[in-house]
Amino acid sequence: MPTADTWTIYLSGEIHSDWRQVIEDGIRAASLPARCTSPVTDHDASDACGVAILGDEPDAFWHDHKGGKVNAIRTRSLIAGADIVVVRFGEKYRQWNAAFDAGYAAALGTPIITLHDPELTHALKEVDAAALATAQHPEEVLGILRYVITGTLAP
Amino acid sequence: MPTADTWTIYLSGEIHSDWRQVIEDGIRAASLPARCTSPVTDHDASDACGVAILGDEPDAFWHDHKGGKVNAIRTRSLIAGADIVVVRFGEKYRQWNAAFDAGYAAALGTPIITLHDPELTHALKEVDAAALATAQHPEEVLGILRYVITGTLAP
Amino acid sequence: MPTADTWTIYLSGEIHSDWRQVIEDGIRAASLPARCTSPVTDHDASDACGVAILGDEPDAFWHDHKGGKVNAIRTRSLIAGADIVVVRFGEKYRQWNAAFDAGYAAALGTPIITLHDPELTHALKEVDAAALATAQHPEEVLGILRYVITGTLAP
Amino acid sequence: MPTADTWTIYLSGEIHSDWRQVIEDGIRAASLPARCTSPVTDHDASDACGVAILGDEPDAFWHDHKGGKVNAIRTRSLIAGADIVVVRFGEKYRQWNAAFDAGYAAALGTPIITLHDPELTHALKEVDAAALATAQHPEEVLGILRYVITGTLAP
Amino acid sequence: MPTADTWTIYLSGEIHSDWRQVIEDGIRAASLPARCTSPVTDHDASDACGVAILGDEPDAFWHDHKGGKVNAIRTRSLIAGADIVVVRFGEKYRQWNAAFDAGYAAALGTPIITLHDPELTHALKEVDAAALATAQHPEEVLGILRYVITGTLAP
Amino acid sequence: MPTADTWTIYLSGEIHSDWRQVIEDGIRAASLPARCTSPVTDHDASDACGVAILGDEPDAFWHDHKGGKVNAIRTRSLIAGADIVVVRFGEKYRQWNAAFDAGYAAALGTPIITLHDPELTHALKEVDAAALATAQHPEEVLGILRYVITGTLAP
Amino acid sequence: MPTADTWTIYLSGEIHSDWRQVIEDGIRAASLPARCTSPVTDHDASDACGVAILGDEPDAFWHDHKGGKVNAIRTRSLIAGADIVVVRFGEKYRQWNAAFDAGYAAALGTPIITLHDPELTHALKEVDAAALATAQHPEEVLGILRYVITGTLAP
Amino acid sequence: MPTADTWTIYLSGEIHSDWRQVIEDGIRAASLPARCTSPVTDHDASDACGVAILGDEPDAFWHDHKGGKVNAIRTRSLIAGADIVVVRFGEKYRQWNAAFDAGYAAALGTPIITLHDPELTHALKEVDAAALATAQHPEEVLGILRYVITGTLAP
Repeated sequence: MPTADTWTIYLSGEIHSDWRQVIEDGIRAASLPARCTSPVTDHDASDACGVAILGDEPDAFWHDHKGGKVNAIRTRSLIAGADIVVVRFGEKYRQWNAAFDAGYAAALGTPIITLHDPELTHALKEVDAAALATAQHPEEVLGILRYVITGTLAP
Repeated sequence: MPTADTWTIYLSGEIHSDWRQVIEDGIRAASLPARCTSPVTDHDASDACGVAILGDEPDAFWHDHKGGKVNAIRTRSLIAGADIVVVRFGEKYRQWNAAFDAGYAAALGTPIITLHDPELTHALKEVDAAALATAQHPEEVLGILRYVITGTLAP
Repeated sequence: MPTADTWTIYLSGEIHSDWRQVIEDGIRAASLPARCTSPVTDHDASDACGVAILGDEPDAFWHDHKGGKVNAIRTRSLIAGADIVVVRFGEKYRQWNAAFDAGYAAALGTPIITLHDPELTHALKEVDAAALATAQHPEEVLGILRYVITGTLAP
Repeated sequence: MPTADTWTIYLSGEIHSDWRQVIEDGIRAASLPARCTSPVTDHDASDACGVAILGDEPDAFWHDHKGGKVNAIRTRSLIAGADIVVVRFGEKYRQWNAAFDAGYAAALGTPIITLHDPELTHALKEVDAAALATAQHPEEVLGILRYVITGTLAP
Repeated sequence: MPTADTWTIYLSGEIHSDWRQVIEDGIRAASLPARCTSPVTDHDASDACGVAILGDEPDAFWHDHKGGKVNAIRTRSLIAGADIVVVRFGEKYRQWNAAFDAGYAAALGTPIITLHDPELTHALKEVDAAALATAQHPEEVLGILRYVITGTLAP
Repeated sequence: MPTADTWTIYLSGEIHSDWRQVIEDGIRAASLPARCTSPVTDHDASDACGVAILGDEPDAFWHDHKGGKVNAIRTRSLIAGADIVVVRFGEKYRQWNAAFDAGYAAALGTPIITLHDPELTHALKEVDAAALATAQHPEEVLGILRYVITGTLAP
Repeated sequence: MPTADTWTIYLSGEIHSDWRQVIEDGIRAASLPARCTSPVTDHDASDACGVAILGDEPDAFWHDHKGGKVNAIRTRSLIAGADIVVVRFGEKYRQWNAAFDAGYAAALGTPIITLHDPELTHALKEVDAAALATAQHPEEVLGILRYVITGTLAP
Repeated sequence: MPTADTWTIYLSGEIHSDWRQVIEDGIRAASLPARCTSPVTDHDASDACGVAILGDEPDAFWHDHKGGKVNAIRTRSLIAGADIVVVRFGEKYRQWNAAFDAGYAAALGTPIITLHDPELTHALKEVDAAALATAQHPEEVLGILRYVITGTLAP
């Protein structure tokens, strides 16, 4: 258990549905000693951060590169400080950053929970192979967190 | 000493006797700056957690596999955060998870105290070889914790 | 430089084009002291390995899970032993395993070269942010290997 | 892949059946670039080594302790040098050293294959949860090694 | 994110301009949960510390050596405890200690932000290659910190 | 700097003079944000701890072995948690545990300050070679701590 | 000692004098079991590598950035594989990459030898503080290597 | 087991008796696949190396410091490359470097064998507590090596 009895849960991946909210609300409702961290979930800010802060880039590659690296300052620190990493794959976009985060957490030895629909199972088999649990709904992730943190199954 | 002066003691192994209670009561009675963590000690919950949270499995192997992995989310985080790992072997069951925890702690370099009857000495010689102390009674573990944390032998 | 003067290059990602062959042929033609390793590139074998070796699974998730884990025995050992990891993203499939490998290598601190078309730049910005070079053609990867290994630019 | 193209497979656990021989013979028959290492498999030597080399001990605990530690000089070096750790659980004895080795390998991040009868599945669920494959027969382990090392399923 | 929600930012390098003040003032003004650490920024104290505390040295090398090592007690602890390392290169002096700090942080895997004028870009290309962002003004560093910590671009 | 702004200083070695008191008093007088940890400094308790807690041993080696290991539970945790390790060598006894602690801290990369009379310089040259400062008096150690923690030389 | 009895010496820093040649010639003349590695020492190639291999960049920063990163693929692998890192500082250029390499090696715990004129002592005091030896002439480095590898002082 | 099947045994400590020769002769006589490494065992060379190679020092502390550090270039590389570290304590001198080496090896997790007379047991109890075996005669060390490497007790 992390220092000071509070678990830190990093919520990686999809930013176009409310799954993070479900988990955070559930943690609060159950008064679990846990806090959630995440990458920047504002899509536009996440895309623009490099050039918005450090100046424009006419070349598309460097535009994205600047942003990808600034985001990495946040995500690497947060993943390194997490007790559990939840990685959500949705229907839209390629979400390579989510798979990247999963690989990063796996190499650090941090427990991983994947969260996705069964339709993605085959494509995600290598990522799921590195996870300690695979859920289909955020409520299941919440169930795992409650059990793992409190040690009881009863809600 | 861990951050903030509090020692974290992970209590691994047997869940069918009151040894954890003895240690926790003793810590409280002696006002030691220590807190105990442990795997889930509710045998039924520990067996059922995988399917109860993530859905039933008709196959016995996957039923157990799901549960074993969900439990690992808890145990790996707690062992990684422990200053001392106490591993208790009782008379019942094979308790391979206790020996597994001992190996895990040994590779992390975390100090290990084993706790078991002399009858098990021969079978546990490789595990005891990795421990910094082997006790027969939880009161002895308590004695070690008091000495290690306060630096004095007097009760 | 790795033990015994030979560089080990792990070639991760797309298995439906001949990019690995281009790099391996080029290494041989230039007599570079390097050898290439890779995941299993036979798509069918990679999908079937779990059940083919360890017995059938009626459930699709466990069918894939068994295979994903057997493949991980190979890929984790090979990535851990690599001096450089090249990650190729193609047009087809979601290739989450490639992004996972990149994240894994990044956390290990192993130098990464990404290889993909400019169309994928935006979607791959977080992965490219962790790479020390991004190439569009396998010949460029070969150029990097030649320079890095021999220390000269001239072909 | 390990240095110099040879895979090192550590064979931990049961010493009262011929499973190691089956795997070693199969490796040789298939000309796999792999070598096997193991703990001392002579039960009597393994029990006696401490006192035989360093002098007798009247106390049973120290008799075993001396031996357990001398064996650890061998096993820790060999596990640390292994690319894959196979852990076999048989019907006899408590085999806590096998579970300890599994925990040790898990903390090092070394890929683990467990090998045991289905009857032991429930008792071994935490150990299997840390493995990348669970086999019932040594021939299956051989199948995994062949696939992992050569990258092909065909025998 | 670091324990207890506070980010620690190590400010390495130039001690003859007010860039640290700009960043610290900005953090306070924006109420960011961050604190800054730094090497000793009193040039004279930093030069004299070895001999002032531990006794004079007639030989110039040992005079400096004593001081360099005493300073290292501080800088290594602070860099090891930092979530982000900012390295500032100014116009004056050779500032090899700043480049040394950058290399040290890079090997630890700590995110690095470099801060320097474009005139120094060519000479610093290897250092910038290890950074996740390169800024020209302390206000830009502040912009990165605000974005990374709060997850929003709006000021 | 350690979490929460407090430095942890481990004071290893000689237990027959008041050097620890001098340092602790000085820290308090200067209101430095630092706390000191140490091995058990009660010589008799340190010698007797193993048998006093875990039962008598007729054999001198095991008597000492039990105690040495129980002490190691404390010292390894405290050294691992220290930001700075001070190692004091006095005139009496062989103090191999002090040199052992210095080697342990060196391998962990923790900054070391040695404290001893010039008469011991030659015999301690390998230990001093691993230290970032060598002091003769506890007041000098205090001077280093004040400078390192506050960043100023003035008392 | 490295695998297979051969020591690997990484020669970092100045590329405008013949100091590497002196050391390599001396190693050969003395038949020392050592081999030298280094960054790319062709200044033009080192500057141009990024754009020469991966395509031109109109922006000076990205021109240099591309090159700096490609060079890092080589230097990080070679430093990670070195038993000893020698860092040479000359009179010309700022040589921040040399100081960066020293910091990188220091964090890895690799023994460092610095090589520079006494005029640079003050500016390099933090780098020298991390070195196990500071030499003024390449012949002295050679003397250290001969002593360290053969264990004898006689030439 | 180390790469290439050869075990590397580092022989630390006393240089005034023939214990290393006994072990090396025994290894050769038994044709064990092992090689021995050691610190410089020529007392005069070991004392003089710093000033002999890098120039005289009028101050005794720096004279010794230079030498201690040059010796550390050798010993740290050799200890880091060892599979087993044997530490011999004799009757003469304080041998703090031997205890330092033991602490260094302990923190690295390398198996340690101590070798000393029973008279030193009490003074060495903390060092023996970190060892996997304590021998009184070099022949016993040889017996351990034979058993550990070949897996058999018979001579």
